[in-house]
Amino acid sequence: MAMRMSSLFLRTLREDPADAELPGHRLLVRAGYVRRAAPGIYTWLPLGLKVLRRVEAIVREEMDAIGAQELTFPALLPREPYEATGRWTEYGDNIFRLQDRKKSDYLLGPTHEEMFTLAVKDMYSSYKDLPLSIYQIQNKYRDEARPRAGLLRGREFIMKDSYSFDVSDEGLQASYDAHREAYVRIFDRLGFEYVIVAAMSGAMGGSASEEFLAVSAIGEDTFVRNDAGTYAANVEAVVVPQAAPVDASGVPAAHVEDTPDTPTIETLVASLNANHARSDGREWTAADTLKNVLVVLVHPDGTREPLAIGVPGDREVDAKRLEAQVSPAEVEAFEAKDFAANPSLAKGYIGPGVLGETRESKIRYLLDPSIAEGSAWVTGADEEGKHVLDLVHGRDFAADGTIQAAEVREGDPSPDGNGVLHTARGIEMGHIFQLGRKFAEALDLKVLDENGKLVTVTMGSYGVGVSRAVAAIAEGNLDEVGLCWPRNVAPADVHVVATGKNRERDGSVFDKADELTAAFEAAGLEVIYDDREKVSPGVKFKDSELIGIPTIVVVGKSLENGVVEIKDRRSGERREVAVDVAVDEVLAEVRQGRGAKA
Amino acid sequence: MAMRMSSLFLRTLREDPADAELPGHRLLVRAGYVRRAAPGIYTWLPLGLKVLRRVEAIVREEMDAIGAQELTFPALLPREPYEATGRWTEYGDNIFRLQDRKKSDYLLGPTHEEMFTLAVKDMYSSYKDLPLSIYQIQNKYRDEARPRAGLLRGREFIMKDSYSFDVSDEGLQASYDAHREAYVRIFDRLGFEYVIVAAMSGAMGGSASEEFLAVSAIGEDTFVRNDAGTYAANVEAVVVPQAAPVDASGVPAAHVEDTPDTPTIETLVASLNANHARSDGREWTAADTLKNVLVVLVHPDGTREPLAIGVPGDREVDAKRLEAQVSPAEVEAFEAKDFAANPSLAKGYIGPGVLGETRESKIRYLLDPSIAEGSAWVTGADEEGKHVLDLVHGRDFAADGTIQAAEVREGDPSPDGNGVLHTARGIEMGHIFQLGRKFAEALDLKVLDENGKLVTVTMGSYGVGVSRAVAAIAEGNLDEVGLCWPRNVAPADVHVVATGKNRERDGSVFDKADELTAAFEAAGLEVIYDDREKVSPGVKFKDSELIGIPTIVVVGKSLENGVVEIKDRRSGERREVAVDVAVDEVLAEVRQGRGAKA
Repeated sequence: MAMRMSSLFLRTLREDPADAELPGHRLLVRAGYVRRAAPGIYTWLPLGLKVLRRVEAIVREEMDAIGAQELTFPALLPREPYEATGRWTEYGDNIFRLQDRKKSDYLLGPTHEEMFTLAVKDMYSSYKDLPLSIYQIQNKYRDEARPRAGLLRGREFIMKDSYSFDVSDEGLQASYDAHREAYVRIFDRLGFEYVIVAAMSGAMGGSASEEFLAVSAIGEDTFVRNDAGTYAANVEAVVVPQAAPVDASGVPAAHVEDTPDTPTIETLVASLNANHARSDGREWTAADTLKNVLVVLVHPDGTREPLAIGVPGDREVDAKRLEAQVSPAEVEAFEAKDFAANPSLAKGYIGPGVLGETRESKIRYLLDPSIAEGSAWVTGADEEGKHVLDLVHGRDFAADGTIQAAEVREGDPSPDGNGVLHTARGIEMGHIFQLGRKFAEALDLKVLDENGKLVTVTMGSYGVGVSRAVAAIAEGNLDEVGLCWPRNVAPADVHVVATGKNRERDGSVFDKADELTAAFEAAGLEVIYDDREKVSPGVKFKDSELIGIPTIVVVGKSLENGVVEIKDRRSGERREVAVDVAVDEVLAEVRQGRGAKA
Repeated sequence: MAMRMSSLFLRTLREDPADAELPGHRLLVRAGYVRRAAPGIYTWLPLGLKVLRRVEAIVREEMDAIGAQELTFPALLPREPYEATGRWTEYGDNIFRLQDRKKSDYLLGPTHEEMFTLAVKDMYSSYKDLPLSIYQIQNKYRDEARPRAGLLRGREFIMKDSYSFDVSDEGLQASYDAHREAYVRIFDRLGFEYVIVAAMSGAMGGSASEEFLAVSAIGEDTFVRNDAGTYAANVEAVVVPQAAPVDASGVPAAHVEDTPDTPTIETLVASLNANHARSDGREWTAADTLKNVLVVLVHPDGTREPLAIGVPGDREVDAKRLEAQVSPAEVEAFEAKDFAANPSLAKGYIGPGVLGETRESKIRYLLDPSIAEGSAWVTGADEEGKHVLDLVHGRDFAADGTIQAAEVREGDPSPDGNGVLHTARGIEMGHIFQLGRKFAEALDLKVLDENGKLVTVTMGSYGVGVSRAVAAIAEGNLDEVGLCWPRNVAPADVHVVATGKNRERDGSVFDKADELTAAFEAAGLEVIYDDREKVSPGVKFKDSELIGIPTIVVVGKSLENGVVEIKDRRSGERREVAVDVAVDEVLAEVRQGRGAKA
């Protein structure tokens, strides 16, 4: 049945809502697709639900096509399985926890690895039962610290999550590849520009992992890629290669110099250039200095561990890269009380002399891999107002290891050696992981192999943000007056506008619009029909542009000449066509549009 | 795609699961439809999800047919709207409450009256916008004290809830009637015997209310109806008419008698018959005595209020009827400490002499409406070992009012005066309420009427237990070997069994079964195909009976004679048909079955 604007549960807003930050989200609210119920928690109004269902249907079709089977786990889950894998604790404040009337602990599921693993353990016992891929499309919950960006980062959201179960690593690779291909088809059909990047697996454990990012300036994720298309990675997952050793034979012995009032890299470089001319005559730059950054890791059990990170002075530590490396620990600032607890640290003048597990501070010290063995640095001398020059890595100082935490910048060499990196922003739409045996081991999921021996199953985990996809599509398909849905996910195929004032005065307009609406429906199209009386044509046009159905058919004055107007929402292109061919024309557009990538 | 048993995520169990009480639920677990994740919380396995989706689709179609519009509210809801209507408190322990990381209060929605009301308030402002009916099909949560009976009373469950919004009472009646008709169609299509009974509206407030009960011996609800079909009510909703006054002019003055050791009705009647012969020579019976039952009401705010209920001595107070009357207060036993706090009460000999708000005990005293004015009773004399005889209601004692709390029994007169009542048990499948203006008033939902005056909207509330329907259908459609799904909700139309041992030895059997499966699918049927190798025909037959698809096609030895067997799961009837007409025969059965009520 056509959605008639005269009765559709919809009120468009002319003003931007106060609680929406992003342009697409503002339009979703203004056009009556969603409403906020609480921070990060949304109501799907009739039009929004239509889009959501269409996205779900595409995801479901492609999952079914690779033989994945749908089931549904509860959203309210008992604590025990999450305790067994350690995630009850690891999730920290990021999950919603509750107790029932008997004081038993429950959580609202953020992801369901545990439940899927236990279901397979319950039902299967032999290698002959595998491979298996199972999935669900379901409400999930995360207690985000800063729920923002509307549906892009909600606290209640809809995800498709699937899991594969295999006996062998080759089997896992095959299941992973099948999902990867299904995801390519899903995102092609959803109609946005995306990029597949190498990803961190974060708190999930596991090894190989890729993300599908919608390319978008408003995205929360930064990714890098090279021009040749041979390398693309989420910035958290970039692995900067260890710099090759350099010859330090010409470097003089390290020497401590007075550098009063130089607690920052900037003041240090100025002081060096003023007072300590280099033998080669070059100016000192920040890149010649070794900056030692201190942070505190807070582990899931609450213990606090100081950590020192050495990076070239011209780079910052990237908070997200660092977090990804140390997860599930969280990163906090190294504060005055931490300095007080570590008297060997001379704030502003900290150097490798005291850093490291075996040195005075006992603080773990990790270096950026760009710091080559044999390279010489200016760095803190662990004494107020003093720095040490010509300090050579491997000759004069050592660290406890390396860490991938320094910022990655536009123009950095591509880690695969092929050109340089460009940075861009994206929205994480899908994530595919090779989880491996972590969950199967924690929950004891074993099957008998061909030789009757118990072997631990290896798993893959694959997610699509379904409600997030709706938001991402909106953000990527809009203009200054409204939304422009790709045809595959639009809440309707055609929006019929009757421009008459009322049925009494403009009966023929409404009659013809009624007739066209019925004909579109008979042809299998979904229709929004603006049949409102006493609403001006201007308001109806504005609403149709705001709502964003791909094809708009205007039945109005020109009906006297036997024509109606067909308007393409995205291009704005209009043409008049004879009334009696309008249905065929629109049908042709719809068929063409559905086949093509938006 | 056919569900192939060789890869379907399904393991049938030969043994009954320990955690399932009801026959249908045991079969749902054994046949691999559902699994318990926690008390009252279930996982829907692939076959169960298919049934659930078919039930949902029927509900959705019928709701759309009456012009109701689908949307989806969150399951995780902020406290404030529920605070505004008082339900945050009234629900007591029956809802799941939680706090987010900022210590804000949330609940998991048990029903969504508040959210629907606020959505309409947000969007609509004029009588012209109404009537409106909106609905959702969604996970709901109740923290049941004793989650039992499997899916029939879960803590996470799926409901369709809809709400109507009207300006006038007549409008509400029309919306209510439309829903009632839609529900009749839904339950006709779902295929179980049901009865529509008058119901209490309980904690929801409101006036007119009816329930759709699946008639079932295992139901938790008791209902009554008369033979003429003019009266049917949930036992909680039965309104026993006030007995007409009788002439007490011939009754002697009340007189207290010694009745030592008669703290129970039984001992009292024996003592009366031994020591106090009646003037009319009849034996005393329990029906001549007035029993005063004491309970404690615990109000939502925690206050405890004693309550006395006077019923004829041959009837008990019905706990459920009492609870329905006093809701949202809960009923607790009147304990030793309560007697201690009320010294005027002589346990076992309590009478109207001290009961009542204006008498010594100050305890509110309510009478069963069967106690006529002018009727004479034997009842407690408020002194150990003494009763009072010929105590006449209205002459010698009065109460604070009446209460519908006495048990209703088989053979009681029908409240509409038409014959007697029969009792039976049922499962509540649907509930339709005329909520009236309670929620609209609490949340200030007003619209402008035709005269530009603000008027409060009147609402209806309508629920179908979707996951419960799956369970109720299972309970009503089974035999000793398995489930027998009605065709409209079966997870597949036909179950093809290839009885061959393996493809090497019995290639022709598997080839023909493959071919038939493909032909069924091409004809638009959903197929379960038992293509397992190395599984005996006996096991395959048992599994097909357990799973309960309406039509089973066996491809086996008789293929040599060019025939396959078609078996009707419910009747057990089998017939052999020529292979080349098998598809047409099954198609005819499916078409016939879908049209008919199961």
